[in-house]
Amino acid sequence: MKSIAQLSSLIQSGQLDPLALAEETIAGIEAYSDKAVFTTLTRDRALAEARAASARIRNGRSLGALDGIPIAWKDLFAMEGLPTTAGSKVLANDPPAAADAAVVALLKAAGMVSVGRVNMSEFAFSGLGINPHYGTPANPISTDGHRLPGGSSSGSGVAVAAGLVPVSIGTDTGGSVRIPAAFNGIVGYKATRGRYSMQGVYPLSKSLDSLGPLCRTVKDAVLIDAAMRGATTPTLAARSVRDLALLIPETVMFDGAEPEVVAGFEAALERLQAAGAKIRRSPVPVFGEIFELMARHGALVTAEAYALHQTRLAGAEADGMDPRVVARARLGANISMPDYIATLDARERLIARMADILRPGELIASPTLPHVAPKVAPLIADDDAFFAMNGKTLRNTLIGNFLDWCGVSLPCGHGAHGMPVGFLLSGPANADELLLGHALAAEEIVRG
Amino acid sequence: MKSIAQLSSLIQSGQLDPLALAEETIAGIEAYSDKAVFTTLTRDRALAEARAASARIRNGRSLGALDGIPIAWKDLFAMEGLPTTAGSKVLANDPPAAADAAVVALLKAAGMVSVGRVNMSEFAFSGLGINPHYGTPANPISTDGHRLPGGSSSGSGVAVAAGLVPVSIGTDTGGSVRIPAAFNGIVGYKATRGRYSMQGVYPLSKSLDSLGPLCRTVKDAVLIDAAMRGATTPTLAARSVRDLALLIPETVMFDGAEPEVVAGFEAALERLQAAGAKIRRSPVPVFGEIFELMARHGALVTAEAYALHQTRLAGAEADGMDPRVVARARLGANISMPDYIATLDARERLIARMADILRPGELIASPTLPHVAPKVAPLIADDDAFFAMNGKTLRNTLIGNFLDWCGVSLPCGHGAHGMPVGFLLSGPANADELLLGHALAAEEIVRG
Repeated sequence: MKSIAQLSSLIQSGQLDPLALAEETIAGIEAYSDKAVFTTLTRDRALAEARAASARIRNGRSLGALDGIPIAWKDLFAMEGLPTTAGSKVLANDPPAAADAAVVALLKAAGMVSVGRVNMSEFAFSGLGINPHYGTPANPISTDGHRLPGGSSSGSGVAVAAGLVPVSIGTDTGGSVRIPAAFNGIVGYKATRGRYSMQGVYPLSKSLDSLGPLCRTVKDAVLIDAAMRGATTPTLAARSVRDLALLIPETVMFDGAEPEVVAGFEAALERLQAAGAKIRRSPVPVFGEIFELMARHGALVTAEAYALHQTRLAGAEADGMDPRVVARARLGANISMPDYIATLDARERLIARMADILRPGELIASPTLPHVAPKVAPLIADDDAFFAMNGKTLRNTLIGNFLDWCGVSLPCGHGAHGMPVGFLLSGPANADELLLGHALAAEEIVRG
Repeated sequence: MKSIAQLSSLIQSGQLDPLALAEETIAGIEAYSDKAVFTTLTRDRALAEARAASARIRNGRSLGALDGIPIAWKDLFAMEGLPTTAGSKVLANDPPAAADAAVVALLKAAGMVSVGRVNMSEFAFSGLGINPHYGTPANPISTDGHRLPGGSSSGSGVAVAAGLVPVSIGTDTGGSVRIPAAFNGIVGYKATRGRYSMQGVYPLSKSLDSLGPLCRTVKDAVLIDAAMRGATTPTLAARSVRDLALLIPETVMFDGAEPEVVAGFEAALERLQAAGAKIRRSPVPVFGEIFELMARHGALVTAEAYALHQTRLAGAEADGMDPRVVARARLGANISMPDYIATLDARERLIARMADILRPGELIASPTLPHVAPKVAPLIADDDAFFAMNGKTLRNTLIGNFLDWCGVSLPCGHGAHGMPVGFLLSGPANADELLLGHALAAEEIVRG
């Protein structure tokens, strides 16, 4: 259960050979009893990449901190020679990708070893991680049966939390990086939309789609961030907790939250405050307006997912899809062009208003989710329970996507049933350096 | 008929008093026989601003090159205390604006004297400049009867060409700055969308709306550009014509062009080439795809104008609107949300493809319009003639809006009936410095 930084220091010092690490990683995945985590094991690729890393390091030509580090990709990043299934059976017979997605190529160029692709909600269109085609990965932290992995980057969260890989790259349209990170007790960093290339990433909703790593530490996220931007070494440094200013929104974020989640979050806040952070609590009516807007004009994600899958939803292919994904996407048929434009316009206005609320240098803190990972069975059994839980699971995080924020979910102790609680630190668009700099300093304090 | 720079040098040297200039300008407007050019004369404001400029200059505290220079605004920029009519009668009883639009305030801060507002196509939704509510300004260059002013910034083009003001600010969604500039033989600079604040500017189509000055010289455009960006003095300098590289697109731009327009354009190109410019001719299939896309999914401007005016178009207010504006905007009812999204997606792809076609540092040159300003009467009389001429008039320029270009139309001799020909120099998004730097150098050569 080592971090990238820990593995890297063993590799760079010659104590760990990348080829041995790749073999051990693949063996670990093969031995793991839950077969719903990985959808594809790319053994040949991994071994070839690991051999190259091994040779480089032996010859003193290391590519840097990520050289020889294993990585798993959410099932929607193009990988040369593989069809991109995006968690769906209907794409499984698509022609294989001619080339890696841009971010896959960048991490390969940084020396990383791609061991495979991991499961997700079909077309990334749910926050729970339930997938009727490839199975629903079990939350590895649970000691009382099958609990949700969180989605849509379900396999990414579980693969890292179970120690199968130190990092997995997910996408986040409504919370799909931050939710599985919180449910599985790991770090999940959703970069500002547009920070990395989306070339070769199967889309869900272009106005909202973003991506980022699920990993063990913020430092690991910083290493990945630098490489996905094409930098050889990160320039980002920890900031002082004494300079951390937090807005705690009193609107929406705590509604119906489990007492243990609130307690875990508040305890972390107290520790941060004791370390010198400035805390301010305030209502943020903008959040309420986002949900009113969605009720009036439909959600952006619904509109854009419907536009993307329109032909598929109208044809026989829909029969091969998760009926819940079909039902939710078909709601897009009720969203008119003026509805959609009204939402885009309102989004701009709400982002501008949020900019007036947030003070310069301030970040937003909230629980990532109002609850810990619930049991899977009742949600598979009942549509109403599924839709209600999906809405509640996405609620806090989708605010960040709508307002074009960056955000990082940090592990923050445990709530009911010993399940992990997530502490979500968010910042406005392109405040990623500020966000990660503070997260580096706050991480251990939040963890408690 | 002096330029801003010429007036400025008289003002700064004490030879011309801003108050006398304002009085003379207002008298000139009042004496001008065509009452369809100005919709509002802001005499009190102008005299107050001129008095202040006069006092500043007497006291050696000039605000710079624009201090005391008269300006007229297209009828869609908010001006404190006036309702913003946007060329429509249905807005005429709206409450007066509480404050100036951001760019109005910036030019006021630079010392400019706002003498009034000028006519336009209703809601900026036509390229011809015909307005049944406030009249159609006559092209002042015509010697054989009432010819089109061009639109939608019709009054802006005529006010400058007739010498009533040295500059007028227009907006450009499909060519509305560049078309009246070309038809009236003046300079029209459409900045890259987003280069200036759109706050207080009545919208037509947010994905396409841009703005810029209609004036006598590129130097004047550069002065205005700096002030509308909040700079006190322009830093932009002329480039050498020897460094000018031009792509002449063989697709669309010359289709059905008047021989005299082509001859005027080609003569200018020859002069530029003789002065050292590099000329390259090539088909640009991207242009054809723009029109195929519009045929398949509807135009962006139609979708966004429909979304903006939806309530108005469905109610009694439509009876008070130009029936041709109503008919064209109502076509938006046929554009679905997926159509609209498909267009936005295709736009991104076509912009990326255009970036591959254009070489670094290269600009695009074409005739601004395939024809000179035609007679007005037949176009008022016949809907089919109107729609056909409107389409052809907007054709070359709308390519620039769709591809998010900046562009400047330069006067380039005369075509049929002695009417002006426009030479359109365009560059990709945010290449405004390159564009204006080359336009400064090329202007006199193009003029011939």
